[in-house]
Amino acid sequence: MGSTYGDNIRLTVFGQSHSAAIGVTVEGIPAGEAVDAEKLAAFMARRAPGRNAYSTQRREADAPEFLCGLKDGFTCGAPLTAIIRNGDQHSRDYDKLKNIPRPGHADYTAEVKYGGYQDRAGGGHFSGRLTAPICIAGGICLQLLEREGITVMARIASIGGIKDDSEFTEPVGGREFPVVSEAKGEEMKARIAEAKEALDSVGGTVECVVLGLPAGLGDPMFDGMENRIARIVFGIPAVKGLEFGLGFAVADKTGSQNNDIFTVIDGCVRTETNNCGGILGGITDGMPLVFRAAFKPTPSIAAAQRSIDLASGDPAVLEIGGRHDPCIVPRAVPVVEAAAAIAVYDALLERRKEIRK
Amino acid sequence: MGSTYGDNIRLTVFGQSHSAAIGVTVEGIPAGEAVDAEKLAAFMARRAPGRNAYSTQRREADAPEFLCGLKDGFTCGAPLTAIIRNGDQHSRDYDKLKNIPRPGHADYTAEVKYGGYQDRAGGGHFSGRLTAPICIAGGICLQLLEREGITVMARIASIGGIKDDSEFTEPVGGREFPVVSEAKGEEMKARIAEAKEALDSVGGTVECVVLGLPAGLGDPMFDGMENRIARIVFGIPAVKGLEFGLGFAVADKTGSQNNDIFTVIDGCVRTETNNCGGILGGITDGMPLVFRAAFKPTPSIAAAQRSIDLASGDPAVLEIGGRHDPCIVPRAVPVVEAAAAIAVYDALLERRKEIRK
Amino acid sequence: MGSTYGDNIRLTVFGQSHSAAIGVTVEGIPAGEAVDAEKLAAFMARRAPGRNAYSTQRREADAPEFLCGLKDGFTCGAPLTAIIRNGDQHSRDYDKLKNIPRPGHADYTAEVKYGGYQDRAGGGHFSGRLTAPICIAGGICLQLLEREGITVMARIASIGGIKDDSEFTEPVGGREFPVVSEAKGEEMKARIAEAKEALDSVGGTVECVVLGLPAGLGDPMFDGMENRIARIVFGIPAVKGLEFGLGFAVADKTGSQNNDIFTVIDGCVRTETNNCGGILGGITDGMPLVFRAAFKPTPSIAAAQRSIDLASGDPAVLEIGGRHDPCIVPRAVPVVEAAAAIAVYDALLERRKEIRK
Amino acid sequence: MGSTYGDNIRLTVFGQSHSAAIGVTVEGIPAGEAVDAEKLAAFMARRAPGRNAYSTQRREADAPEFLCGLKDGFTCGAPLTAIIRNGDQHSRDYDKLKNIPRPGHADYTAEVKYGGYQDRAGGGHFSGRLTAPICIAGGICLQLLEREGITVMARIASIGGIKDDSEFTEPVGGREFPVVSEAKGEEMKARIAEAKEALDSVGGTVECVVLGLPAGLGDPMFDGMENRIARIVFGIPAVKGLEFGLGFAVADKTGSQNNDIFTVIDGCVRTETNNCGGILGGITDGMPLVFRAAFKPTPSIAAAQRSIDLASGDPAVLEIGGRHDPCIVPRAVPVVEAAAAIAVYDALLERRKEIRK
Repeated sequence: MGSTYGDNIRLTVFGQSHSAAIGVTVEGIPAGEAVDAEKLAAFMARRAPGRNAYSTQRREADAPEFLCGLKDGFTCGAPLTAIIRNGDQHSRDYDKLKNIPRPGHADYTAEVKYGGYQDRAGGGHFSGRLTAPICIAGGICLQLLEREGITVMARIASIGGIKDDSEFTEPVGGREFPVVSEAKGEEMKARIAEAKEALDSVGGTVECVVLGLPAGLGDPMFDGMENRIARIVFGIPAVKGLEFGLGFAVADKTGSQNNDIFTVIDGCVRTETNNCGGILGGITDGMPLVFRAAFKPTPSIAAAQRSIDLASGDPAVLEIGGRHDPCIVPRAVPVVEAAAAIAVYDALLERRKEIRK
Repeated sequence: MGSTYGDNIRLTVFGQSHSAAIGVTVEGIPAGEAVDAEKLAAFMARRAPGRNAYSTQRREADAPEFLCGLKDGFTCGAPLTAIIRNGDQHSRDYDKLKNIPRPGHADYTAEVKYGGYQDRAGGGHFSGRLTAPICIAGGICLQLLEREGITVMARIASIGGIKDDSEFTEPVGGREFPVVSEAKGEEMKARIAEAKEALDSVGGTVECVVLGLPAGLGDPMFDGMENRIARIVFGIPAVKGLEFGLGFAVADKTGSQNNDIFTVIDGCVRTETNNCGGILGGITDGMPLVFRAAFKPTPSIAAAQRSIDLASGDPAVLEIGGRHDPCIVPRAVPVVEAAAAIAVYDALLERRKEIRK
Repeated sequence: MGSTYGDNIRLTVFGQSHSAAIGVTVEGIPAGEAVDAEKLAAFMARRAPGRNAYSTQRREADAPEFLCGLKDGFTCGAPLTAIIRNGDQHSRDYDKLKNIPRPGHADYTAEVKYGGYQDRAGGGHFSGRLTAPICIAGGICLQLLEREGITVMARIASIGGIKDDSEFTEPVGGREFPVVSEAKGEEMKARIAEAKEALDSVGGTVECVVLGLPAGLGDPMFDGMENRIARIVFGIPAVKGLEFGLGFAVADKTGSQNNDIFTVIDGCVRTETNNCGGILGGITDGMPLVFRAAFKPTPSIAAAQRSIDLASGDPAVLEIGGRHDPCIVPRAVPVVEAAAAIAVYDALLERRKEIRK
Repeated sequence: MGSTYGDNIRLTVFGQSHSAAIGVTVEGIPAGEAVDAEKLAAFMARRAPGRNAYSTQRREADAPEFLCGLKDGFTCGAPLTAIIRNGDQHSRDYDKLKNIPRPGHADYTAEVKYGGYQDRAGGGHFSGRLTAPICIAGGICLQLLEREGITVMARIASIGGIKDDSEFTEPVGGREFPVVSEAKGEEMKARIAEAKEALDSVGGTVECVVLGLPAGLGDPMFDGMENRIARIVFGIPAVKGLEFGLGFAVADKTGSQNNDIFTVIDGCVRTETNNCGGILGGITDGMPLVFRAAFKPTPSIAAAQRSIDLASGDPAVLEIGGRHDPCIVPRAVPVVEAAAAIAVYDALLERRKEIRK
């Protein structure tokens, strides 16, 4: 099925880009947790489009409306559902796409899977717009984690080949362009502007770090922290790669280079390096959990593209209207934080079961 | 919990490295599917250790004993359970590790998670030995897929920085060293020998390709093919990165470079390139599904390593006995095939539900 | 967690009696299924209150608003979400109940479970009002089953000790009082009126029959048809018993009395009797599936009742305002049909996986 | 699929009546829990056949062999698997049944479901023998619950119409015939002997009471205690009805008769009666949890029965060889305890997630 995540909290994302509303139901948050709506709105705003030159100029009314699950600002134990009404729709823009699948999009695969019954408008359930409900659920989880002393922070690690290798030690989500090195950020912005000018788009990577995690979270084999994070992060449209700690670089290392040596600092077990990204055997070791996700360039580009007409099988040329992000990466940063927060909070609840009172 | 995978077939892996047995239960394989035991044994042999200079000299009796689920060589609809008895155990080798966690292993995280009650011997449930049951389940799925015209094939893509970029068009699993370019293979073997000589180990990458997949497999959001494969592949010990199609390279591309243009070949919809690795919106597009996994170097190395004594908190020096692979990558190739086969077969069953008779 | 049901379709019910809205998300209905909104509304109306003398005079606006999952009247493959706005709320009626748990209600158990944070108003998530979303999902499943030639029909089997043993061969859901024997129906109505007069309420049983089921649905052990139906039917508030076929009466029988003898009728395998209720080993045998559920009398009665003040621990007397059904059974009939339809449709999809193309 | 139960512990039952072994894997038991093998064996013995005149004379070697999951008698966090080797098999006894389905058994439904590939011998995966693995898992859960001060106890409530209404206040599982009133027990034994004499069998009911449960266990809607218990208890072969508290008797009551009045005893909230069986809104209220299950008479009877030949469609007469229980109810008593213990322990783990440290 696909739109549900989690074993201990369970979120179900619903909606299509142009349906009456999109939203999310979250089950399993214990009763009595405060949800700060203002803080959530501020978090949601980080994902919202139309804020600057390098994101789409579409305006989305992203204020979540809570239908249930809260009572006087606290979770009440019942499933929590929040929706966002869709407005400003131009479904007709998509009529011309009916038979011409956009390269790099799910148009063709959805056509096959749903036998022609899918909701094509705006990408339907495959739209990046569906990351808004993930941000509602994740924004709440971020608040829950904060109360446990856990910080989830992501940043742009690269765009179009321009890398920011600066050490990442504190949140940058408050910044208009969430990058550590502002100099690198300017280069990245220029790269985005260049792509936009060329009626093109550009990809990038997001790095996420979770601080304050206790050792012992995560499970063996298929529910390790890597698996848990992978299952949700690959649910963010455009993610094509995911790595933890040194990631793909481990393939070129020797054991003596890669092994993180245990040590004791202030009475706590730590490792001298953190090549493993805070995860050994799927389980957190008390060091920062670190991962990076690779985002492909927005497939919707302004330049004309070749495609085919599915009805006739003939070649066709496609010019996509609408307003699209020349680079999705800046707006993806809070989505990655949201996804990580959900995965971590779910693992935290799982962990509670193991600890005898 | 962690040791269970799948929604439509469900496999549960059990056992510790030195417990009486390890094994797997697979539910959900439709009745009436032939299981070719000899073919399975041949597949299992590809994972077995002790076959050559670059793998551990431990000998494992990896012949699966079927306890149930088969009747006269066909699945009978009931859960299928197969076990492998553990023998040749040297649990005492691990006694000295009791308080000294091996760097890069789950020793410390398991200690925290299980409060001192974990089975340390041989890495317990975290041992690479637990990939044998995955191979039982996956070896069966490979047979089931073959009957649907689907081929799953993996190869060594790199070891210790030596890359084999040769085109990968047919299975190499039958080779003693599963690499496409034998020249590159020789370089890799030398790299492994060098690491072994240095009492060290070395990492690498495995690439997997699935041929013959119909378009339309996989689900949106959290059950896309990437998510499904990620959840199982990150369950293979030592995997720290996973990428599909171009993978991390997409981050440096523009949309016009990365988008795969649709075309029609022999009446079938295809794409001119396959940067997306055969997956759009989580759903197969009918092109080969392609992914790569990064394996860290075996953390167990023969050289002495610094660690700590968890009881006293004092520094300690660790010399690991036992016999370990200087490079796990060659033996990981069939495990990756097994994992991919399981994920793909599960998605195939899911797909059946959508198709009206 | 609790508010989610199903393996192949998955429905999540959300909302509290007095929250902004209640609703349901259904995942897994294949794309391309028509949903007849008018027919659904007619089905929903059977559950709606305020229609006659023996149901509550509250008026509920039970028209579902579809937020997503439909495109031009057909399922589009994405999750389907429908909500019902709550109106006509008198939350203040429940203020007095804050510390005085109503006997027979979840007030006290929710207080303990949710540590005082539950939404007490109208029974919160435990309200019978939450059967409306079940009817949305079930009403859709009834349409899907009808297309496969399957009829789900329920009836009042008894109220307050008055039993209708008439043979149940065709749907009576269209009747204002869904009973087979109208004479017995009149007796039952009188029994309800009598209870109402006495400021009391009365219980009853509902029988459900599913016609047209193929043999082979359902799974062994914990996913047999009995288990599947039980898991959803015990989710209807007030159900305290469930039995299949002869049900509890089997306990008094001998094997020779109870065994249903196989026979062949018009080339089809049938049984001469149907004591097993159409289920053997958890799997349908092609005969009508038959079950009965016992509903306790509405715990909210107009008469004063003794209780306690949870704050002080002192005895207290409770007079419940609001308008309550003196007998919930007539309105429960469509809810039982809905629940059965969901369980059966889920099993039908499961079955598709087993059948090779 | 069917052979898996539980959200927080997860047990998977495998095996067929005549396969090499049957067994169970249990995941999710926290590490560090002692498992008393002797106590478990004593519990298993209560289910074992061949102990007296009213059970089958087959001898089953029901001693579980633990393959993994335990270390020095304590759970180690890894999945726990135990198997029982099958011996004393007379598969040939079942050859004659190949085409003649036994009335009241799953022979025919399995034939349809598995397309002729099922393992017919001894009932395959549908055999009552598969309750032995449930008893392994449940016997362990009973030990875990005992440590939390929770007692699960079942008794024979009726056999063949002979009811034991004696108050049930302490365990009777230690008795050779687990009934409260020994006088009634003698009548029941006579009833069984009479059925046996007549080459017939007889049904009955089992009542189960859980003492010492805290209030607050269980979840709303589909994961209430009733749903959780139903899903596992209907997994015991031959169960056709299940009721909680007063059960079906509530249908004949008024609200004022049925509502349990809250009171305070020794500072604890209690109810004056326990008609609800300790469950309100699916959640325990701190009173004893009470349920009853109805078992149909063993369908395998010694008398000749009419059936059909599935191959030809012709009538056939069936004489079942083998040795069968004339009444399964006495041996079902520990199975019901096991099932209840599993359901309750799973709910206890779920509850831990809700409680902040």
